[in-house]
Parts: sequence; structure tokens; C-alpha cells
Amino acid sequence: MADCIEKYQIFDLELSGTKSGNPFTEITVTAKFSNHAQSIETKGFYKGNGIYGIRFMPQEEGSWSYQVHSNDPSLNGVTGTFLCTPPQPGNHGRVCLKKDVSPKEEAHFYETEEDFHFCYEDGTRFQPFGTTCYAWINQVEEVQERTLRTLAKAPFNKIRMCIFPKFYTYNTTDPERYVFPGNPRDGFDFTRFDPIFFENLEKRIRELDALGIEADIILLHPYDRWGFSKMTREQDIFYLTYVVRRLCHFKNVWWSLANEYDLLPHKTVEDWEAYARVIMGNDPYGHLRSIHNCIPLYDHNRSWITHVSVQRVDVYKTAEMVTDWRSQYRKPVIVDEAGYEGNIDFGWGNLTGQELTRRFWEGCMRGGYVSHGETYIDRSETIWWSHGGELHGDSVARIGFLKEILGELPEEIEPLRLTAKNHEENWDSVCLHKEDEYYLYYYGFSRPLYRNYTLPDKKKYKLELIDTWNMTIRELPEVYEGKIRIKMGARQYMAVRMKEISGPLEI
Amino acid sequence: MADCIEKYQIFDLELSGTKSGNPFTEITVTAKFSNHAQSIETKGFYKGNGIYGIRFMPQEEGSWSYQVHSNDPSLNGVTGTFLCTPPQPGNHGRVCLKKDVSPKEEAHFYETEEDFHFCYEDGTRFQPFGTTCYAWINQVEEVQERTLRTLAKAPFNKIRMCIFPKFYTYNTTDPERYVFPGNPRDGFDFTRFDPIFFENLEKRIRELDALGIEADIILLHPYDRWGFSKMTREQDIFYLTYVVRRLCHFKNVWWSLANEYDLLPHKTVEDWEAYARVIMGNDPYGHLRSIHNCIPLYDHNRSWITHVSVQRVDVYKTAEMVTDWRSQYRKPVIVDEAGYEGNIDFGWGNLTGQELTRRFWEGCMRGGYVSHGETYIDRSETIWWSHGGELHGDSVARIGFLKEILGELPEEIEPLRLTAKNHEENWDSVCLHKEDEYYLYYYGFSRPLYRNYTLPDKKKYKLELIDTWNMTIRELPEVYEGKIRIKMGARQYMAVRMKEISGPLEI
Repeated sequence: MADCIEKYQIFDLELSGTKSGNPFTEITVTAKFSNHAQSIETKGFYKGNGIYGIRFMPQEEGSWSYQVHSNDPSLNGVTGTFLCTPPQPGNHGRVCLKKDVSPKEEAHFYETEEDFHFCYEDGTRFQPFGTTCYAWINQVEEVQERTLRTLAKAPFNKIRMCIFPKFYTYNTTDPERYVFPGNPRDGFDFTRFDPIFFENLEKRIRELDALGIEADIILLHPYDRWGFSKMTREQDIFYLTYVVRRLCHFKNVWWSLANEYDLLPHKTVEDWEAYARVIMGNDPYGHLRSIHNCIPLYDHNRSWITHVSVQRVDVYKTAEMVTDWRSQYRKPVIVDEAGYEGNIDFGWGNLTGQELTRRFWEGCMRGGYVSHGETYIDRSETIWWSHGGELHGDSVARIGFLKEILGELPEEIEPLRLTAKNHEENWDSVCLHKEDEYYLYYYGFSRPLYRNYTLPDKKKYKLELIDTWNMTIRELPEVYEGKIRIKMGARQYMAVRMKEISGPLEI
Repeated sequence: MADCIEKYQIFDLELSGTKSGNPFTEITVTAKFSNHAQSIETKGFYKGNGIYGIRFMPQEEGSWSYQVHSNDPSLNGVTGTFLCTPPQPGNHGRVCLKKDVSPKEEAHFYETEEDFHFCYEDGTRFQPFGTTCYAWINQVEEVQERTLRTLAKAPFNKIRMCIFPKFYTYNTTDPERYVFPGNPRDGFDFTRFDPIFFENLEKRIRELDALGIEADIILLHPYDRWGFSKMTREQDIFYLTYVVRRLCHFKNVWWSLANEYDLLPHKTVEDWEAYARVIMGNDPYGHLRSIHNCIPLYDHNRSWITHVSVQRVDVYKTAEMVTDWRSQYRKPVIVDEAGYEGNIDFGWGNLTGQELTRRFWEGCMRGGYVSHGETYIDRSETIWWSHGGELHGDSVARIGFLKEILGELPEEIEPLRLTAKNHEENWDSVCLHKEDEYYLYYYGFSRPLYRNYTLPDKKKYKLELIDTWNMTIRELPEVYEGKIRIKMGARQYMAVRMKEISGPLEI
């Protein structure tokens, strides 16, 4: 009987080997996984206590065999086989660039809408609705558990999270465990890793996966008093290599090389580029990769960057910039920090729920994505953006409402451009559309008493008025065609959805 | 006994001359006005019915003489004298560029804050708080009178207004009189002017002046069904020449060469440049000059343009752009259309009062100015933005409140830059400051629970919390120094004013 492992899940092998010396630095171990058609090499890693990890995420069903190679004789030459079984419902594999999974055209040299979107490895649509809990795995266990319970009820399917602990305003306590063995008093051993820290990290990644949440893992960041932001290039590479070799087998992992890379003055562009190569060289699956700015954007035209993971440029220019960033980089755009709902003192963290909800709509309607964060300083002892815990804000439910609406969009939807025929009178609003068939308009903080539309010739439409704040959808009783005027009630945060019905009705 | 005329008011002479033929095109008349030190030539104009106008706005007190020159023998050679008397209180002359009136430095080649501001000819501060009633002089008399009564109670000291009538949504009726004699049925005589139209226009400009309101006169615009936007270059120049010769003597006139110049596809840059020369050649005083865009800005580096009179670039980028426009053009920036308060269908005209008030604060705090407009479609038969009539909005009172606060600022105030020493923790907000002495912070839609400040060393301050929406100013009881934390109450639209007191207290 061969072992069975579900497609996109982890074949996870533990082998006993050398315990003496420093196996983290001295022992190398790789494994070649082969099926009828291909061989894939993955890098093993030391787990402590003489145990070595060999992992593999099979992306093809059927029989696989493997063979281990190592400078440790007790590991070298180990072989085995297993069977990869079909994925269970809800298991869609990694999130990828849509153009890499299901290209509409064999190859294209011009911009198409699929350049700007994601999907799972099996072709299932994935629209990121992320949140931010930078240091949730560095909190005490009880907070981590509460965070997971909150996430289970929230609409988010991606979370930005760090590996290193965070030192910053409202983040001043030491965590229980670190990436490296040691503590702030005695210092850290940068040549070894703490097995218990990594076991907990992996447990949390698995739990996120069970909730359908992608772990957008921030590998380096500047909020530091322990020295982790000032390691040497060799130490950085040693750390990155280990992390990527251990975690790349989790299907729900994304690599965010840094948060606010520009606040790490010790690192150069050459460092970042070298680190990107380390990630790619140790991740045979090619998980999504990004690097996040504080002020100046990193050069997102670099080919290793799969998507734009951007922060608002100033207090104002946020989700509205999606149009420009799409055009500039021709990659999916996630405004991973559009400002947070809350009442913290910092300008980036005291938005109303209405304003953050507006930014979500605005960014999505322009063909991008937006991430959530919450920074209420007076609602509980934890602040979601950093610690996790509970959510208190008004935007969460509205983001869930938006997620439902966006989930129902036709796959071929794209932002309506000013040059589109028909609909010219709506140059001053954002609209997602599939030509002639489907239109979703959004009016943000505008509050028109009514709007005029010129519908495409010879087509009939059903219309719905969507109140994005009160989360209501009202179908209008009539069937519309030609030049129409729709009463909007002079309310803010309204949307209009139009679906063509003439086709189906005539059949 | 010589005639007396108050400084900056109009010496207004009427002479009888040729009535036959077309005096508008056939008769030229100029007058040379001289005092002990200088001679200034102004161009006369035909008023109809054999009457010719000779005007002059003296800018120096004392004795003046004049001599008329004309190809009409009955006008040629007329001479006279008058005495220019001191200005009455409230009469400060034209509005000018501050750097032209009271330069702090003899000459400067670097940017100074006075490049970005205005003042009256006599040195009195002028901070424009404009409104927009494009076609108010083209409405029936009763509406014009109501508009003036409304303006008398409003905080505005500038108004954008057209000469030609307006044809546009909500603007479809013909006016009673036009610049040219004629009507839509029989056509217009583009070689003559309607004296009664111009007498009313002048009356309205005088009435605005009596209210302390600058008339920002829009000479050309695209909202037309009568043909006024499609005149030939010769007809445009004939019109501009007449208008400028007649109106330039009013101290409260500004020239806005066009509204949405880019929506006049029949005109080229060469046309606009030629028209600018016509204005300058016929206005010996050099009133302020601008040209207003719809989408692309005209090249505001052109030397004839005294200030940036700009429209929001899209629905979002408005008052926040002041910083960029100042830096780009080094001229005063007036966001003459930042969007309007109202509930019209168009995106530019359905802002809340809060949002328009926020844009006023935001633009002013960045060292620019913002103009008001109101587009409520369901409050009365007139819409302020175009017809005049009454004001209904919430922003008017708040703009008045802002005007009072800005009026009290020290003359030397300027936007605090990120590089400023102290106050670094406030990079995420806008601030006007006079170094060490005075700070005015504004937090817009942010709602911090508190803010931290590091006050300049060895200085003491009194602080006030300003609620810009509820129009309250609350002085905090303490005297502050060093590192401080101020409770802000997690409310939107708050400002903090800091005045240094250590100096005066120690004296």
C-alpha cells in the first residue's frame, strides 16, 4: 500500500539523521520527486532534534516516487513512492496569476484584462479580500486562537502577516519565541532556527488554509529592536533560504519580500534582487511574490514581482490610483494598505468605516483589489492591524457585501473606459462592465439625485440599485432600454447594476 | 473747480461724437492721462447713440490732466483736468500678485511664499474665497437682484461670471439681451455691441465692488447655441478689445480668458496667445489674468498667466493637488472648480457640504485657494452655480468660518514642509506655520483619538481645538511645551491652532 496524498496538499516526510554539530548549516538534503512525465527537486530542511523534513506539494494526480540526496549518509539514498489523489472540494491549489493558468489567448503582446487578476491553480476564480494582522503569530497563544475565531467569521481570504515580531507604537512586548534561538538579554544565535517557533507558524498557516485564507507572508520588515532588520546579507539569505524551503509546500503561501522596504536603509536594491533570487531558487512552485513600499514604490516592472502590493502614496492618493498602477505595471494591483479603519493618532489609521469601504469599492471598480486593516485604539487591548484579536469596525460587513457582489461578476468583466461606445454620459464615475451584457456603476461619495444612461442599442436590461453602505439591493420593477433616467435619491455610496435580459428572454 | 475722483475709482467721461456709419468699427479714440510724473494712455469706446466713453482709474493722488485723440474731429483735442483724492476706507484698489506689490526681497530667483499669494494694490491682504454664478447677469432682473442680496450675506469676495449666456443642462432659456444686437431667430450683428447689455453688466460689476467682491470675468466659454463660441478670430478680437477697453477701469475686474478652454476645439493655442496679447494691450492696469481648463491644464508657465485657475483633474484629485501645482507653476493657485456642493447628476456637482468644506480647508492649508459652487437641483428654480438666486448648502457658513481663521493668520505663514525641524511626527497632516510662532494643523476626514507633537525647544504655546464643521474654537486651559499629546476626540474635520506665547509673556 502506497501512501496517499491529496493533490495540492503536502507530502510530508520526516527522516532521522545527524544531530551533532550544527545541522542547520552543515547538512544539505534534497529530494527528487518524479512521476511518469517530470521530476521536481525540493530542498529539505533541519527540524531540530535529529529530524529532517522532506516535503512536496504534488500538482498532478497519480503515482510519484522520490529519492533523497544528502551529505548526511543516514539520509542519502532514501527512496519511496506515494499516490496523489484528487483534490477534495474547496481545495483549488495555489493562487496564481490568471494569465498563467487559463490564458484566453495562446500568447499576447497587448494588454488584456486577465493580466490584472488571479485565479487558483485549478482555474477557480480568486478575488483577494485581504486583511492585515502583522504580528498575530507573535502574540500569546490565546490571542492567536481568538484571531482565528474572528477570521472564521470574517469575509477575508488573505492575511498579511510577518514572521519576525514587531516593535512599533502599540507593539512593545517581546514575543515568547523567535525565529532564532535566544532572547533579547542574551542575544540570538543567527546560525540556528527555533523548531517550536516554526511548528507554531506552520500550524497557523495550515489553520488559515482550512479557513480558505492565503498567508501573505512578510519576510522582512523594519519594526525592530531585536536586530532582525539589521542582519547581514549572509544572515538574511540563510534565514530566507530556510523559511522558503520549509513553507513553500503550503499551497496558501504568498511571499511578500518586505513591508515598507524603503524603511530598511541597510538593504540595497542589489540585496532585494538577490533575495528575490533566493526565494525563486528555493520555491519550485513559484508562489506569488511582491514587495511593499512605504513611500516610493519598488520598481514593479521587475519580472520576479508577480503583482503590485502597494501602499497608498499619501493620505489621499489610494484606491483611485489603481487605474494608473495597472497601466504602469500591467500586473494585478492590490492596494495592500489603503489606510485603516480606526481612530489611532496616525493619519493612515483613523479612517471611518465609510471611507475604508469607499476605498474598497473604488479600487475594485477600477480593476484592482484592496486590503483591510483596523486600528481602534480604545476598543480592546489588542489592535487588529498588529495583534489580531477581535474586529470592531463598520467596514468588515460591507467588505463582505462587496465580496459577494464581485463574486457574481462575469469572468470577462473589465473597467469601462472613457472611449467606450454608449455610456459616455458616465465619464465621471467608475464602472465594471462586460460589453452590452453587464454594467456595475459606483458613485462613491457623490450623491446624485438621479443619473442618465444611454443603454446599448436594441438591448433590454434589468436594473438594481445597490446601497453599498446599508447593504441593500433593490431591483427596479421595469425593463429598461435606450435613454433612461434612474432616481438615485441623492444618497452617498450607491451603485447601479445592469444586466442584459433580451438575450435569454428571446430564446 | 476741478472734478474730483477718488483714487482707484473711475474717472468716467462721456463725449458726443459721430453717430453715423458704424462708430464701433470706424471711430478710434484714445486719451492720454498725465500727472507730474507719468502719462498713461487708455482706449475709449463707443457707447451708442453718438456717445463715446473715456475712462481712467487713477492710481496716484493729485492733479491729473488728459487729452483726447480721435479720428473723429468732434472728439479729437478735448482736454481737461481732475483731482485724484485719497481712497475711502475699504477702497484698496485692484487685487494684484503679492510679489508685485510688496516684495520682501528686492529681487529673488528662488521660490518664496509671496509668489503664491495676492494682495490689494495698497498692500492690504487679499485671500480669495470665490463662488461661481456663471450666467447670473444673463438671468431676468429679479434673479440678478436676488443674487446680489444673497451675495451681500455670503462670505465670498470673488465671483466667476460669464459675459455670454450659457447653454447647457439646466440652462436652456434665452437671455433678454446679448453682447451683440440681435436675437436667435434673426441672427446677431457681430460688428456692433448692445449698449443696454453693457450698461447692465457695468452696473453689476459696480454693485459687486460695493460688496467687496472681485468679478472674475470669463470672456469666452463653450456652453453655446447662439454662435458666440464659434466666432472667427477677427470677431473674437473685436469683442475682446471692446470688452477690455470698457471694463478694465473697474478695479474689481479679473480676466478669465476662457472657461474650459479645451472644450473650444475651434480655438488654437495661437488664438489664445493672441487673445492674451489683446487683453494686455488694452488694459493699461494689468488686471489678473487666467485661463481655466476642463481636463488638460493650459501651460500655466506662460508669462501672461498671473495665477493658476484650475479645475479638479478628475472626480478625486482636487484640492490635494495644490502642493503639486504650486511647485509646478510657482504662481498663486486657485482651485476655481473643486467640485460643487449639491445633488445634480454630474459627478462634479453632487458633493456633500462636508466634502466641499474639506476641500476648501485642504486647498488653503496647502497654500492655495478654493472656489465655491452650489448645484442643488431640487431646492429652488434657480441653481446657484449658473443662475444665482439663493444659496441652500451647508458649506457656505463653514467657508465663512474658514475665511475668518485664515484672515487672522500671520502674513508670513507658509505650508510646513516635511523637512521642517520639529513636528516630524505630523508628516501625515497639512499644516500652515510661521516658524516657532504659529501652527495651524488640519486633519480632514481623519479622526484621531489624539495627536502627539514635539514643540520647538524653549517655547511655550497656547492651543485651540477647532471643529471646522461645527464651527467651534475651544481654547485648551494649559500652556504647552516640549512633547505633548492632545486629545482630539476621534472626530473628523478637526484642526489644531498653536500660538507661541513665551515671547510676549516674558516681556
